[in-house]
Amino acid sequence: MALPQSWLTPPPGPSGKHAAIAAERQQVLTKPPGSLGQLEQLAITLAGLTGSNAPTVDPVRMVVFAGDHGVCAEGVSAFPQAVTAQMIANFAAGGAAISVMAKQLGASLEVVNLGTVGEVPELDGVIHQVIAPSTANMVETPALSPDQVAAALTSGDQAAERSANAGCRLFIGGDMGIGNTTSAAALACALLGLPPERLVGPGTGLNREGVTHKARVVEKALARHGNDRDALSVLASLGGFEIAALAGAILGCAARRIPVLVDGFIVSAAALVAVQRQPGARDWLIFAHRSAEPGHDAVLEALDATPLLDLGMRLGEGSGAAVALPLLRAACALHNHMASFADAGVSGKSGE
Amino acid sequence: MALPQSWLTPPPGPSGKHAAIAAERQQVLTKPPGSLGQLEQLAITLAGLTGSNAPTVDPVRMVVFAGDHGVCAEGVSAFPQAVTAQMIANFAAGGAAISVMAKQLGASLEVVNLGTVGEVPELDGVIHQVIAPSTANMVETPALSPDQVAAALTSGDQAAERSANAGCRLFIGGDMGIGNTTSAAALACALLGLPPERLVGPGTGLNREGVTHKARVVEKALARHGNDRDALSVLASLGGFEIAALAGAILGCAARRIPVLVDGFIVSAAALVAVQRQPGARDWLIFAHRSAEPGHDAVLEALDATPLLDLGMRLGEGSGAAVALPLLRAACALHNHMASFADAGVSGKSGE
Repeated sequence: MALPQSWLTPPPGPSGKHAAIAAERQQVLTKPPGSLGQLEQLAITLAGLTGSNAPTVDPVRMVVFAGDHGVCAEGVSAFPQAVTAQMIANFAAGGAAISVMAKQLGASLEVVNLGTVGEVPELDGVIHQVIAPSTANMVETPALSPDQVAAALTSGDQAAERSANAGCRLFIGGDMGIGNTTSAAALACALLGLPPERLVGPGTGLNREGVTHKARVVEKALARHGNDRDALSVLASLGGFEIAALAGAILGCAARRIPVLVDGFIVSAAALVAVQRQPGARDWLIFAHRSAEPGHDAVLEALDATPLLDLGMRLGEGSGAAVALPLLRAACALHNHMASFADAGVSGKSGE
Repeated sequence: MALPQSWLTPPPGPSGKHAAIAAERQQVLTKPPGSLGQLEQLAITLAGLTGSNAPTVDPVRMVVFAGDHGVCAEGVSAFPQAVTAQMIANFAAGGAAISVMAKQLGASLEVVNLGTVGEVPELDGVIHQVIAPSTANMVETPALSPDQVAAALTSGDQAAERSANAGCRLFIGGDMGIGNTTSAAALACALLGLPPERLVGPGTGLNREGVTHKARVVEKALARHGNDRDALSVLASLGGFEIAALAGAILGCAARRIPVLVDGFIVSAAALVAVQRQPGARDWLIFAHRSAEPGHDAVLEALDATPLLDLGMRLGEGSGAAVALPLLRAACALHNHMASFADAGVSGKSGE
């Protein structure tokens, strides 16, 4: 199976011209220059990404990718594997956190089922692109075959394409997969050359013994994997279906000039893969929040990212990005609708 | 002039029963317990404050109190004093940050003019309760007379009463007043017994020399004021019309069971006054953001407050609280609309 074009080709860059115009505008709006803090840079960034003097993030598309993990056989999660399939039904029924947020924020929500151990019925709003019931156990063997990686990347790229076709101006990717903090930690360790103790955390709620065991599992997987830091090899060896799809979606969005609001630990691990493969993709990423999962810090640092929120969230599904979305809307509204000193007849700084 | 009842009488407390029910509900929603981070405690707090099993913050009322400061004669601000009156017109015309945010967020906005040196014409949405063109210069004399303090507190209490009459479930107070970070720093120093160097900052954009001069001005005012830490004395001696009104509004809201989303440095200084006078008012305060103004940290610490956002904002007007409002809405929506494990047929933690 072929890899998507967005994996193979560098993405376009943002518009420096529009960013420069936006930076000038921020200096003349009726507020002390700099007083909107991070919201100012956010507006400038979005002006560059959207190539517009009146940046917007709407309409927003949210896509949750779900898949099961073979490494669950090692006992790495506080929740049973059946939850992945059960949560797909919960997304569709509107009862999950991301469903509630999508509805409240007026964003369209898609759920992509990439394969679960539990059975998933036909459900409205769920796209079935089943690769296998689960990845293989990464401790024993590569988690995904080359064809499976290509299928997952393609699923992500297609989600980006659907978003572009729907005219969406912002993409929020989410994850569902019991065991996926184990996979994300292993991926990040392999890509960054960091030890598992630094990146493995409690996930959905392991106690200290559980975290120690999980770190040993990641260590075994890394020992089997070796030192290969090629993005595709790492993804196949240690990835999950949903993490590969998220990496594909990020590159697919960058290729199509759609900014991505990055959620927590899982999506950031996928972003690390995407940026490793195409460094230019970094420009298209805005980081929503710092997860309570301890490994997130190292991944954010590697991506030179300062997230907007730090609320101790660690839910996944894209929920942290959804909660941060109104900050992007605020940055755009303030940038587009505030009066300038000249227009409002307000005096500027004394002696200027 | 009489002080408002809310200044004289302790406010009611939140409903412990509703908070306890909300805390239990957070444990059974379809997410790992604790994984929504601060949003969980926020929903529990709002359930207690609203006395409801389905907490809401809507409708939201925003009120900006504006007034001029005699201490501007000492050259403590980067902007000319005319800006206070000019910005009142900008609020009414919709061009200020808080105007843009109120519109975007569907909140009603009132502006209360307590007195400015510049002329303010009749304007839609502006309530004129002029006390004087300006406070007195706090370096030389108490900034407000006892009658002026009572008038400002009453103006704030009346804003709370209008909010209650309109059925509002959340109050956001904002400030406009060139020179008011000087007054707020002086107030906080007097109430907390801290030195000016700790609390004085650049405000709208002073350079280092300007900050040093401003600290000396505050030191002079504190030397004149002496060691009296009584809330009313401190407010009269070092306050501004808008800061006193904000303190009155906070106590007025607490008295009427309306939660207050506290903005940055100025509103927090007003909150410090309010809580000093009526410690029970603290229960009604939710802190929106950590201001870039360096003195905010000490005030937040004294109020035992952990704000939701830390975006480097320092604009005032209530803008930081407005930007944080969607987080409260998210907390309520998730609490009220997420499915429970039982309802959604999702398995809980393994072995539980």
